[in-house]
Amino acid sequence: MEKTNILLSGREMPRSWYNLAADLPNPLRPPLTADGTPITPETMAPIFPMNLIEQEVSSERWIEIPEPVLAILMRWRPTPLRRAVALEKHLNTPARIYYKDESLSPPGSHKPNTAVAQAWYNKEFGIKKLTTETGAGQWGSALAYACGLIGIECKVYMVRISFEQKPFRKVLMRIWGADCIPSPSEASKTGREILKKMPDTPGSLGIAISEAIEEATGDESGRTRYALGSVLNHVMLHQTVIGLETRKQLKNAGVGLPHVVIGCAGGGSNFAGLSFPFIAEKIDGADITIIPVEPTACPTLTRGRFAYDYGDVAKTTPLLPMHSLGHTFVPPGIHAGGLRYHGMAPLVSQAAVDGLLEPMSLDQLECYRAALTWAQTEGSIPAPETTHAIAAAIREAEKAREEGKDKSIVFCYSGHGLLDLSAYEAYLDGKLVDSTLPEERLQESISELDGNPGVD
Amino acid sequence: MEKTNILLSGREMPRSWYNLAADLPNPLRPPLTADGTPITPETMAPIFPMNLIEQEVSSERWIEIPEPVLAILMRWRPTPLRRAVALEKHLNTPARIYYKDESLSPPGSHKPNTAVAQAWYNKEFGIKKLTTETGAGQWGSALAYACGLIGIECKVYMVRISFEQKPFRKVLMRIWGADCIPSPSEASKTGREILKKMPDTPGSLGIAISEAIEEATGDESGRTRYALGSVLNHVMLHQTVIGLETRKQLKNAGVGLPHVVIGCAGGGSNFAGLSFPFIAEKIDGADITIIPVEPTACPTLTRGRFAYDYGDVAKTTPLLPMHSLGHTFVPPGIHAGGLRYHGMAPLVSQAAVDGLLEPMSLDQLECYRAALTWAQTEGSIPAPETTHAIAAAIREAEKAREEGKDKSIVFCYSGHGLLDLSAYEAYLDGKLVDSTLPEERLQESISELDGNPGVD
Repeated sequence: MEKTNILLSGREMPRSWYNLAADLPNPLRPPLTADGTPITPETMAPIFPMNLIEQEVSSERWIEIPEPVLAILMRWRPTPLRRAVALEKHLNTPARIYYKDESLSPPGSHKPNTAVAQAWYNKEFGIKKLTTETGAGQWGSALAYACGLIGIECKVYMVRISFEQKPFRKVLMRIWGADCIPSPSEASKTGREILKKMPDTPGSLGIAISEAIEEATGDESGRTRYALGSVLNHVMLHQTVIGLETRKQLKNAGVGLPHVVIGCAGGGSNFAGLSFPFIAEKIDGADITIIPVEPTACPTLTRGRFAYDYGDVAKTTPLLPMHSLGHTFVPPGIHAGGLRYHGMAPLVSQAAVDGLLEPMSLDQLECYRAALTWAQTEGSIPAPETTHAIAAAIREAEKAREEGKDKSIVFCYSGHGLLDLSAYEAYLDGKLVDSTLPEERLQESISELDGNPGVD
Repeated sequence: MEKTNILLSGREMPRSWYNLAADLPNPLRPPLTADGTPITPETMAPIFPMNLIEQEVSSERWIEIPEPVLAILMRWRPTPLRRAVALEKHLNTPARIYYKDESLSPPGSHKPNTAVAQAWYNKEFGIKKLTTETGAGQWGSALAYACGLIGIECKVYMVRISFEQKPFRKVLMRIWGADCIPSPSEASKTGREILKKMPDTPGSLGIAISEAIEEATGDESGRTRYALGSVLNHVMLHQTVIGLETRKQLKNAGVGLPHVVIGCAGGGSNFAGLSFPFIAEKIDGADITIIPVEPTACPTLTRGRFAYDYGDVAKTTPLLPMHSLGHTFVPPGIHAGGLRYHGMAPLVSQAAVDGLLEPMSLDQLECYRAALTWAQTEGSIPAPETTHAIAAAIREAEKAREEGKDKSIVFCYSGHGLLDLSAYEAYLDGKLVDSTLPEERLQESISELDGNPGVD
C-alpha cells in the first residue's frame, strides 16, 4: 500500500528554531523610526518583552525552543506530512505532491506555533496580559488558545465587520477565556475618536492594531504587551518548526530535497515556516524552486515595491524594509482574509530581493476551483488562504506532466476551512468574482511610498 | 518529557474488524418483521446490498477489511491516542486519562469509519446511488465525503429545521458533491403527504428515514440503496477499528488494559467502536468498567426498556431487539443531536442485558461545564455528543482521586465541535437548561412498547 502518511515521533521533533537572518546573502536592513533613524531594542520595549525583542534582532542561526513551549507544541506536533495520491491520480501527473498538515492544531492553523511561544516568553518576562488585533479571527483565536493554556490574560480587538459577520471564531476566543471586542471600540482613544467621526465604520486591521498597541503601551503597571501574528522576524522564526519537520520527513521517506516548495503568503508566516529551511539549502547550492503565492487582489511581492513602509494605517509601528502596496492600501474584498495585508515580512522580502524566490499571484476563482478539486479527491476542506497554495501546487503538477518530469512538490496546508464555509457557499452559488487589482489603483497606492522616511 | 501522543504506524493498522456477536454470552435475537416473524436476508435486500447484509447477520469473529477501504481509512488512521495530562493536573487526580482522537477525519468525527466501508461495499455490489437521512449533519456529511471519494451518488434528506438553522454541514455535503435536500420534501410520497397536512413541520429523523428508504426501494433499476450511520450490527463492526487501535496503543505504551472505558452513546456506534474489543477482554475475565454515557434527556439504556421496537416513527424498519424509549419518542431539545435517538444498537443493548456495561446518564449543563474545562486545559473543542464522554471521564477521575487509586481511563473523543459553536455560545450566554426527562413523560412513551410484535 502507498505510503501517504509520513509521521515523525516526538523524539524527532525539532529542538531549535532556524533563523534565516544568519544565512541570507545580504543582511536585513534595520527597522526605522519615523525620523528615519534605525530603531533600537529600547524603543520597542513598551510594545514587546525584551526576550522577544532579542529574538527579533538576533543573528544566531539556531535558537533553542524552551521545554515548556515544546511540551505544548507537542500536543499536536510533529504534524504529519502527507502525500496527495488521489490528487496526483486525478491530475494524471508524474509529480509527487506532499503537503504539511498544519490544520491539526486546536485553533485549526499554523498560527499557534508562534502564539504559544509568544505567550510563554511574555509570561516569563512577567507580563500579565497580551493585546492583539484580528481580522477573520485565525490569529485572535490562536493567541486566545495559547494565553488560556499558559495562564495570561488576552484581549482581542476584532475588526467590527468580522465580529458581526463571522461569529464563530469569536465563540472560540470566549471558550478559551479571552476578551474579544469589536474594533473600533470605546476602550481606546483612537477608537473613540474614530467612532465619533464614523459611527458606522466597518473597522480595519489598521485601526485594530492601533487600539491594541494603545492599550498595551498605556498600562501604567508595565505588565501589558502587544502580540503580532505575522511579519516580524521572531514570528517567522517560531514557524520554522514546519519546515524543519518537513525536511526531516522528506529525508526519512527517501524523497530527499524537494524540487518545488510552496506556501501562501499574506504577512508571510506560514510560507516562511515551511520554506526557510529549504531556502538555506538553496543558498547552499540546492536546485529548489520556492514559491510564495499571493492573491491577485493583494499582489505584494509580485507587483508591490520593496521600500520602507509602516505596518499599519495609523503609522504607529516602525518602518519596516519590505515589499508593500502602501500602508493605506485596502484590497478588494476577497475571502482569504489572511492574505489581505499590504506588506510582507522583511525576511521574506529580503529573500525575494536576493533572488531566492519565485513569487506567484493567483485569482480567487482559480483557488476555489482548486479547493473543490482538492476536497473531492483528498477529502479535506482547506482555509481560503490555503487554497492559494493548492492551486499553485496543481499548476506545478500540471507543468511536470507537460514536461514529463517526476518532480516532488511540497506545500504548506496552513489551515482548515471549517469556519469559512460561507466562502465556499458563495463560490458554489456563483457569487465570487475575479478580483484582480487594476493597474491604476496599484500605481496610486504604491506612489504613496515615495514620501516615507528611508525611501530614496 | 511526558509522552502524551501515542501513535501507531500504518503497518500497525488493524487489518480486520472485530465482531462482538461472536463472543457475547447470549446470542443476539433476530430482527422481526411487523408480523412478528424473524426477518430474512432477502427481506432486507431492497434496502441494503447483500454483501453488507451478510455482515449484518455474520457471527464470524474477524472480518477482513478490504484493501481499498483500508487505503481510504489510512488517510487519517491510525488516529492518535492522547493522554490528557493538563486535565489530570487540573483535576489533581492520580488517574491517567487517555482519549482516542476520532475528530481528525475530514468530516470531523468517527462516522466516516463506516461511511467509507458502506459506500465501498455498495459500489462493489453495483449500486450507483445511496440515500440517507441526517439530523445536524454529522452522518450526512460523512456519507457525502465517502461517496465523493468512492465515486457513487449520494442523496441526503436533512431534517428541515437543521437544514435551515445549521447551514454549514450542508455546505460540506455540497462541496463533496452530494445532493442535500430538506425533509419532508416533495421528492417522496411520504414527504408530500406530510407537507400537505403540516406545511410548516420542522421535520424529524423518523420522517427523513422514511423518505430515504422510499427513494432507495422505489428505484426500479435496483441500483439505489439506503445507508444508516448507527444502530445496525455492520455499522458497529466497522467502528471497531477505534478500539482495536486503542488496545494496541495502550499495550505499546505499557499501560496494558485500562480500568475504565467510556463512550457517549446515541445509536451506539462510537461507544461500540471503542468498547467492543474491551468487552471481549471482559468476557475473558478482565476487570474493566465499561460505561456508555447518554443524556438525561434521552436515557435509553439507563431508563428505557429492552424490547422489540421499530427504528423509525413510520415503522418502515424491522423491529429490533434493543433498549428503547418508544419509536414515537421525541426528546427535549438538547444540543447533542447525535444522542437524541430513541433506541440503541442491538449489540450494545445485548451487552447491557448481559451485565457487561455500566450505563450512565448526564445532564447537558454538566457536560458543557466539562467541555469548557477541557477546552481550557487540553485546548480542543469537543462536539456536543463528545462532551458526555468527557464529563463521565472527569467523574471517574474525581472518584479515583477520592479513592486514591491510580486508574487508567480511556474515552472516545468522537468528534470536534467546530461546526457546533452556537451551542457553546448558548451555554456561555446562560441559555441552556437542565433537560432531564420527567418520569411521567418517560412512562407514557415506554408504555407504547407493549403493543409491539415480539414483546411479551
